[in-house]
Amino acid sequence: MRKMYFPKITAPIPFEGKDSKNPLAFKYYDKNARVGRKTMAAHLRFAVAYWHTMMADGADMFGGASYDRPWNAAGDPIDRAKHTMDAAFEFFQKLGVDYYCFHDRDIAPAGETFAQSCKNLQIMVDHAKVLQKQTGVKLLWGTANLFGHRIYTSGASTNPDAHVFALAAAQVKNALDATQALGGENYVFWGGREGYESLLNTDLKHEQEQMARFFHMAVEYAKKIGFKGQFLIEPKPCEPTKHQYDFDTATALAFLRQYDLIDYFKINVEANHATLAKHTFEHELTVASAAGKLGSVDANRGDLLLGWDTDQFPTDLYNTTMAMMIILKQNGLGSGGLNFDAHVRRSSIDPMDLFHAHIGGMDAFARGLLIAHRLIQDKALSAFIDKRYESYRSGIGAKIMAGKVGFVELEKYILEQGMPTMKSGRLEMLENILNDYIR
Amino acid sequence: MRKMYFPKITAPIPFEGKDSKNPLAFKYYDKNARVGRKTMAAHLRFAVAYWHTMMADGADMFGGASYDRPWNAAGDPIDRAKHTMDAAFEFFQKLGVDYYCFHDRDIAPAGETFAQSCKNLQIMVDHAKVLQKQTGVKLLWGTANLFGHRIYTSGASTNPDAHVFALAAAQVKNALDATQALGGENYVFWGGREGYESLLNTDLKHEQEQMARFFHMAVEYAKKIGFKGQFLIEPKPCEPTKHQYDFDTATALAFLRQYDLIDYFKINVEANHATLAKHTFEHELTVASAAGKLGSVDANRGDLLLGWDTDQFPTDLYNTTMAMMIILKQNGLGSGGLNFDAHVRRSSIDPMDLFHAHIGGMDAFARGLLIAHRLIQDKALSAFIDKRYESYRSGIGAKIMAGKVGFVELEKYILEQGMPTMKSGRLEMLENILNDYIR
Amino acid sequence: MRKMYFPKITAPIPFEGKDSKNPLAFKYYDKNARVGRKTMAAHLRFAVAYWHTMMADGADMFGGASYDRPWNAAGDPIDRAKHTMDAAFEFFQKLGVDYYCFHDRDIAPAGETFAQSCKNLQIMVDHAKVLQKQTGVKLLWGTANLFGHRIYTSGASTNPDAHVFALAAAQVKNALDATQALGGENYVFWGGREGYESLLNTDLKHEQEQMARFFHMAVEYAKKIGFKGQFLIEPKPCEPTKHQYDFDTATALAFLRQYDLIDYFKINVEANHATLAKHTFEHELTVASAAGKLGSVDANRGDLLLGWDTDQFPTDLYNTTMAMMIILKQNGLGSGGLNFDAHVRRSSIDPMDLFHAHIGGMDAFARGLLIAHRLIQDKALSAFIDKRYESYRSGIGAKIMAGKVGFVELEKYILEQGMPTMKSGRLEMLENILNDYIR
Amino acid sequence: MRKMYFPKITAPIPFEGKDSKNPLAFKYYDKNARVGRKTMAAHLRFAVAYWHTMMADGADMFGGASYDRPWNAAGDPIDRAKHTMDAAFEFFQKLGVDYYCFHDRDIAPAGETFAQSCKNLQIMVDHAKVLQKQTGVKLLWGTANLFGHRIYTSGASTNPDAHVFALAAAQVKNALDATQALGGENYVFWGGREGYESLLNTDLKHEQEQMARFFHMAVEYAKKIGFKGQFLIEPKPCEPTKHQYDFDTATALAFLRQYDLIDYFKINVEANHATLAKHTFEHELTVASAAGKLGSVDANRGDLLLGWDTDQFPTDLYNTTMAMMIILKQNGLGSGGLNFDAHVRRSSIDPMDLFHAHIGGMDAFARGLLIAHRLIQDKALSAFIDKRYESYRSGIGAKIMAGKVGFVELEKYILEQGMPTMKSGRLEMLENILNDYIR
Repeated sequence: MRKMYFPKITAPIPFEGKDSKNPLAFKYYDKNARVGRKTMAAHLRFAVAYWHTMMADGADMFGGASYDRPWNAAGDPIDRAKHTMDAAFEFFQKLGVDYYCFHDRDIAPAGETFAQSCKNLQIMVDHAKVLQKQTGVKLLWGTANLFGHRIYTSGASTNPDAHVFALAAAQVKNALDATQALGGENYVFWGGREGYESLLNTDLKHEQEQMARFFHMAVEYAKKIGFKGQFLIEPKPCEPTKHQYDFDTATALAFLRQYDLIDYFKINVEANHATLAKHTFEHELTVASAAGKLGSVDANRGDLLLGWDTDQFPTDLYNTTMAMMIILKQNGLGSGGLNFDAHVRRSSIDPMDLFHAHIGGMDAFARGLLIAHRLIQDKALSAFIDKRYESYRSGIGAKIMAGKVGFVELEKYILEQGMPTMKSGRLEMLENILNDYIR
Repeated sequence: MRKMYFPKITAPIPFEGKDSKNPLAFKYYDKNARVGRKTMAAHLRFAVAYWHTMMADGADMFGGASYDRPWNAAGDPIDRAKHTMDAAFEFFQKLGVDYYCFHDRDIAPAGETFAQSCKNLQIMVDHAKVLQKQTGVKLLWGTANLFGHRIYTSGASTNPDAHVFALAAAQVKNALDATQALGGENYVFWGGREGYESLLNTDLKHEQEQMARFFHMAVEYAKKIGFKGQFLIEPKPCEPTKHQYDFDTATALAFLRQYDLIDYFKINVEANHATLAKHTFEHELTVASAAGKLGSVDANRGDLLLGWDTDQFPTDLYNTTMAMMIILKQNGLGSGGLNFDAHVRRSSIDPMDLFHAHIGGMDAFARGLLIAHRLIQDKALSAFIDKRYESYRSGIGAKIMAGKVGFVELEKYILEQGMPTMKSGRLEMLENILNDYIR
Repeated sequence: MRKMYFPKITAPIPFEGKDSKNPLAFKYYDKNARVGRKTMAAHLRFAVAYWHTMMADGADMFGGASYDRPWNAAGDPIDRAKHTMDAAFEFFQKLGVDYYCFHDRDIAPAGETFAQSCKNLQIMVDHAKVLQKQTGVKLLWGTANLFGHRIYTSGASTNPDAHVFALAAAQVKNALDATQALGGENYVFWGGREGYESLLNTDLKHEQEQMARFFHMAVEYAKKIGFKGQFLIEPKPCEPTKHQYDFDTATALAFLRQYDLIDYFKINVEANHATLAKHTFEHELTVASAAGKLGSVDANRGDLLLGWDTDQFPTDLYNTTMAMMIILKQNGLGSGGLNFDAHVRRSSIDPMDLFHAHIGGMDAFARGLLIAHRLIQDKALSAFIDKRYESYRSGIGAKIMAGKVGFVELEKYILEQGMPTMKSGRLEMLENILNDYIR
Repeated sequence: MRKMYFPKITAPIPFEGKDSKNPLAFKYYDKNARVGRKTMAAHLRFAVAYWHTMMADGADMFGGASYDRPWNAAGDPIDRAKHTMDAAFEFFQKLGVDYYCFHDRDIAPAGETFAQSCKNLQIMVDHAKVLQKQTGVKLLWGTANLFGHRIYTSGASTNPDAHVFALAAAQVKNALDATQALGGENYVFWGGREGYESLLNTDLKHEQEQMARFFHMAVEYAKKIGFKGQFLIEPKPCEPTKHQYDFDTATALAFLRQYDLIDYFKINVEANHATLAKHTFEHELTVASAAGKLGSVDANRGDLLLGWDTDQFPTDLYNTTMAMMIILKQNGLGSGGLNFDAHVRRSSIDPMDLFHAHIGGMDAFARGLLIAHRLIQDKALSAFIDKRYESYRSGIGAKIMAGKVGFVELEKYILEQGMPTMKSGRLEMLENILNDYIR
C-alpha cells in the first residue's frame, strides 16, 4: 500500500456552500455545477504548479527552508522525486483539480551530466504516465527550467556564450519530448534569465536575435515531432534579471511580430508579473485577448506595495471577477487554464496549508466566475460601454472606422458641426455596480 | 526698439571652460568645438521646449502659478502670444541653441471656435517665420496639444465619441500645416489622453483601432501636403491617463507593426517617461535604436523616488554619458535632436533660472558627449563586449545565427562537448571604468 | 426661494437594501440602523470634503477644468462663494451626511490683502453658521490652506523666510477662529509644502525646529481662545513636495515626541497617503491606534500602480473592512470621522456623479462596518490571534513582558528547554475566512 | 605556510592616481593622504562585510550558487569556517581595509544544538583574535543573525512564541560576548524578521512591546559585561518581511523615544534600505544626523527601478559626495564606519571580482570625500543656505525661534508689514555647481 502524505484529508475536498464554516470545504467551487453552458471545472481548468506546491521549501533571500515536507525525506534523488510525485498526485486528487504543470527539473533531479539529467527525466516521465492514467489528472503544460543552474546566469538562449545556447536548446528539446509524452496541452517559455543586468556588458540586439533563432528552432522541432500543443510566452519585467526581454504582453507581441513568430505563440499572463510591470492583471489579460493571443493564465497575486514576485494565492475578488469577465468574453482559454503559480507564506509550514491556499484560490475564482457571469448576463456594464461607442456605428464615426474619410473631410466636418459636447464617463457609478454584484 | 525680456544677459552665454566659476557660462559646451567629425552643436542639436520654458507658470496640483514671467502681462491673448514669442527667440539666441519645439496651443491661444483657433495659429506662424528668419533658429518639431482641452478628457483619437476624433483630426491637420510652414524637421505624437482610466467603461481594442486609423490619416495627409519631416511617437506609461496606450518603446513598436505603420514612424524617447515605465533612459534608447527607430530625444530627468513626471533638467552625468554612447553608435539622431522637455522647480521663479537650468542641461550633455566619445575611441567598454559574444562569430555559434542547426544538432553538440564553462561578466570592473572616465 | 443646484434629486438618497438596482439609493448604508450599540451614522460619522466636492474643477497637470459646476457661475467672488456654500448644504442634506470639512480658502476667496482675506472668511463663516443651524449639518474639522498660494512654495512654517512663517501663523490663527466659531470638532494640519525639494538648499534641522515652534504656538493659541477640538496631523510622504516632513504616522509621532507635542495631537490617517508611503491603509491605522493616536480618517483610495495622489472614492471592501475592524476595536474615532477626501474622475463631469461617488463610498464603508462587526462578534480572526500570543500570558513569556528576566536567564532557559517548535501562521486560512465574510 | 586564496594579488592594492588604467589599482583612495585634518583612512573607516564578501554564493530566488569560492571546499564545517576566515584576512590585507563586520553565523557554523552553536562561535572567535592581532585588522561591528533559521520566520524578539524570544535573547547574548571579545566598536541590530506579513494574524502593539523589552535587556546585559561599544539600529522597510518595524530612521527614532531607549542607540543607515523606503540615501543620513544619531553607514547602492535589496557596490558619485558632506559636517562617524554591505553580481563569479568591486566602492567614496571637502571649503553651497535662512537670525525670525512671539503677535506683524516677497530657491544653479565640482 502506498504511503499517504496527506493523511488528515481522507476524501476529496467537498463543496459545502457559502454558509459552511468548514475551512477545508469549498464555499463556491462546485466542480460540476453549470454556469452558462459549461461546468465550473470546464470554465476554470485549474492546475497545480508542481514547483511551488511540491518543490518549494519556504526559503527566501534571507533564510533557508522552513516547510515541513514529508515527501522530501529520502536520500536518493530519484526516490525523493518519486515520493514527491506520489504526494503530488495524492494532492491533486484530494483537492479535486484536473491539471498540473511542471518544469523538467521539478519532476526529475539534474544529474551530473546532461545525459544523466535526460535519463532522470525519462524515468520520471514514465512514473508520471502511470499516475496520470491511474488518476485521470492531466498535464496542462510543461516547460524547461533554464534559470536555476548557474550556467544560465547570463541567459539561456540569450547567453553571450553559444555553448550555453546549445545547452538550452538540448534541454528544451528533452522538455518538449517529455511534455508530448505526457499529453501536455501547452508548452511555456518563461525567460527568467533572458534579459540583461546592465547595458555596459550587453549587446541587446544580438541577444534578441539569438532568442528569435531559439524560438524558431522550437517551432521547427515541434513540427518535427508532431507536437500539437500551444506554445506560450510568459512575460515578466524583471526578477531575477534586472531587465527581462519579455517585459509584458505588448513587448512579447512586438518581439513575436518583428521576428515572424506571431503565428506560433500565445501569451501566458501571470497576475503578479502584470503588476510588477506596472499593469493591472486585467490590463494584461485584455491586451493579450484583444490581440487574439490570451492562451493561459498563471493565477496568483502580488503585493502591490512590494517590489518582488510574492506569488501569493489569488484571493482578491475584484481581480478574479475582472479576469473571468475577460475570459468569458473570449469564450474561455481554449487549451489553457488557470495555473496556481503561487506558494504559501514562509510561515505556512504545514502541508495542510497547501489545502487552505488552493481552496481559497479556487473559491475566489469560482466566485469571480459567478459574478462575471451575472454581470454579463445582465449587461450590467456592457450596456453602458455599447452606448458609449455608438457614434462609431453610423455617420461620421462609421466612415472613420471604414477608412472613408481623412483629415481634410474631418476638418470640414468640424467647421460645419462645431465642437462636440462632453458626456460623463460614469466611472464611479460603474464601480458601484461592480461592488453591488460582489456578494 | 523691441522690449528686452532678459536684460541682465547682454550677450550670448559664453564658453569659459571647466575652471570657470561663472554660473552663467558654459564649462563644457563649446558650440563649434569638434568632437570626432562633427561640432558639438551638430552632435547635440539642442532644442528649447516652448511649453515649459515660455508657457509654464509653476502651478502644480496643489498650488497656482509661481513664476515671474514679464512676457505674460498683456491683456490681449494675441499680444501676449507675440510678446511670449519675442521673449522666446531672445532666449534662444542668448542661450545659443539652434532649435525649438512647440504644440499648436503653446504658440497661439485657443479661440472661441475651432476656426478662430486656426486663425490664431496662422497669425503666430507668420510671426514665427519672421523671427526664425531673423535669428536663424529652426523648428525641430511641432505637435498638437490634444490633452489640455476638457473635450479630450477621454481621449482624442481614442475618444469614445467620433465627434471628438474628428476634432482631433482637424486640429492635427492644422498643426501639421503649421509645422510644414515653419520648416519643422519632425512632427511628434504624444498621446497623453490616448489610453483609459478603467476597463469598466472602455473597449480597448476599439480604441486601438481608432488610433491606428488616425495615424494612417496623418500619414496620408503628410503625403498629400508633401511634408517630408519624420513622424515620431513619444511613449509614456501613464499620467495624466491611468494607462496610456504608448506605454513604452516596445509597446509603441508592437502597435506600429500590428497596424502596418512601422515604416512611417520613429520614436521620441523621453528620459522621465522611461523611468515612469520602470525602464532606464538607456534601455529605452537602446530598444529604439536596435529597431532602427530612435528618432529624437526629450532630454530631461525624473526623480526615481517620485511617481510622476517631474520633468527636471538633465544633470546626471551617468545618464547623459549612456545616452550619448547610444546616439554616437547609431551616428546621431538624423533629423532629431535633444529637446529640453523640462521645467525649473516651482521655487525657481526668476526668469534667470531658465538660463541656469538650460546651461546645466547643455553642459551635462556636452560632458556626456565628451566622455562617451573617449570611451568609444578607447574601446574601453566595447572591447570587452566584442570578446564576450565572440563565440557566435565562428563554429557552432555562427551556425546558430545562420539558422543552419536546430535542437537535434545542438543536443548532439552538448552530448559530445559536455557542459559549458562559466565566465565572469565583470560588471563591477566595467562600472569602475565608467567612473574613471567621468572627469 | 433658493436656487436648487441638484434639482434631479428631490428627496434624500433612500436606503433600499442590497437587491435594489437603483444607482441613486443606498444598498447597505441605513443611517439609523444599529450595529452593535450604535447606529451606522454614529459609527461612521461621514463628512464631505468641501474642496473636492464643491471646489474641484477636474483640472490635472495636463489639462484645465472639466466639471460642470452650476454654482460657479457668478462673477463676484463672494457671490460665487455663497452659491457654492448653498449648493454644498443642499448636497449634504440630499446625500444625508452629518458633517463637512473645509480649508479657509475653500469657503472664502482670498482677497488682495491679508486683511481682506480675513474679512471674506468672516463673511462666509457667518453664512455657514446660518446654514449649519438650518440643516443640522456640523463641521467635523477646519484647516488652513497653506499650500496653494505661491508664497508658500518653499514651505509655510518651514519656509526659509521668517516673514512667510509669520503669514502662515496669522492665517492659521484666523482658520482656528473660524473653526471654533462653527463648532468644529477638530482642527487638521496637513503640511503639503512643509518639507523640501532638495537638501542642496535646505537646512532640515532648522526647518523642523521652525515647525515645532509653529505647533507650540497653535497649542498656546487654542488654549487662549478656549478651543476644545482635537488637533490632528495628517501625514503624507510627498506631493506636492519631494519630501514632506510628516512622511507617515510613525514619522509624525517621532516628531511630536521629540518636540514635546505628543499630548496635544492625534493623527488623521488618509488611505491614499498611506499607500504613497508604501504602507497599507490598515498599517497606518494600526500604528496610530496602537499609540492611542488614531483621531480621524480621510476615507479615500489610491491607485497602487500610480505614483500620485489619485484621491479616488473608497470602494474596495477589503480596505473598508480592515479599517472598520481597527476603528471598532478602539471603540470608534471619538471626535473624528470618515471624511471623503476624494474627487470624481476628470471625466465624471456631471454634478450627479458626486452622488454616485459618495453613495459608493458610504455603502463600501457600511459594508465594511457590517463585515467587521460580524468578524469581531464571531471572533473569526481574533481567536486565532489570541492563541498565537498565549505564551506571553504565563511562564517565561509573562516574565519577559514583566521585565523579570534578562539575557542570562533566557540563555539558561534555552540550554534547559532546547529549541522551540514551529507553528504555522495560517495566513492563507485566515485570508479565506475574510473572503467568506465578504458577502 | 598558509594557503593563499588570492594568489594573483601579490601585494596590497596600490594607489596609482586618476590617470592609471590599471583596474587593480586605486585612482583616488590614497590611504594616508590627508584631507583636511585627517587621513583618508581615518575619514572613511572602510569595513568589509563578512557575509557578502566571504559567505555569499551568488544564489538568488530563481537559482543556486554561482560563485567560485576556493575557501569553501572543506567538508568539515569548522575547517571550512577557518579557511574562510583565513581567506577573509588575506583579502582585508591585500585590499588595505582596517575593519570588518560579521554576524555570528557568518564566522561560525550553526551546530545541532544551541550549545554546539555557541561552542563553534567560541572556536572562531579565538581564531579571529589571532588573525586580528597578526594583521591589525579590527572589528567595526558584530551582530547576530536572527533571520536565517526557520525558527525566526515570524520574528525573533517579536515572535508570537515566547520560546523563540528566549532563543533570540540567548543568541544575542553570545554575539555580544563575541563582539566584546574581539574589541568590536559597535553592535548592530537589523530586524529583518521583526515585523509582520499580515495584520490578519498579528498583534502589532504586543510585538512592539516585546521588541522594546528585548532592547532593554540588551542594554542591561551590555552594562553587566562592560561592553562600551555603540548600539546601532539598522532600519529597513521590508524584505524579507512584508512590513519591518524599523521602517526607516524616523520610525526607529519614534520607537526609541516611545520606549525610553533613545539614549542607548544610534542609527546605522544603509543606502539601499533608504531607497526601498522611498527616501534618498542623503535624506536618511540627514535625518539621523539632525537627531544626533548617525552612528554608522552601510555603504552600498540599490537599483531604484527594482523593488528589492540589490546591495550593489556604491559607485554613484552623487551619492558618495552627498554622504560625505553630511559626515564631514558632523565631524565624522565616531566609532562607526563605511561598511560595504554589498555583493558582486551573480555573474561576477571570479574571486577577483571582489577586488574590482571593493576598489570601485572605495574610490567612489574617496572621490566623494574629496569633492565634499572642496565644496565645504569653498562654501560653494553653504553660503547660499546661510543666506537663505538669515531672516531667523534677527528681528521677527529670531523672536519666533526664541519662543517670544505667538499667533497674535504674528498676525499683527503681517497686518503691519504686508505680504512677504518671494525669492528663487536657485536649485538648478546649485545642481550645476555640484556637477562642476564632480571632476
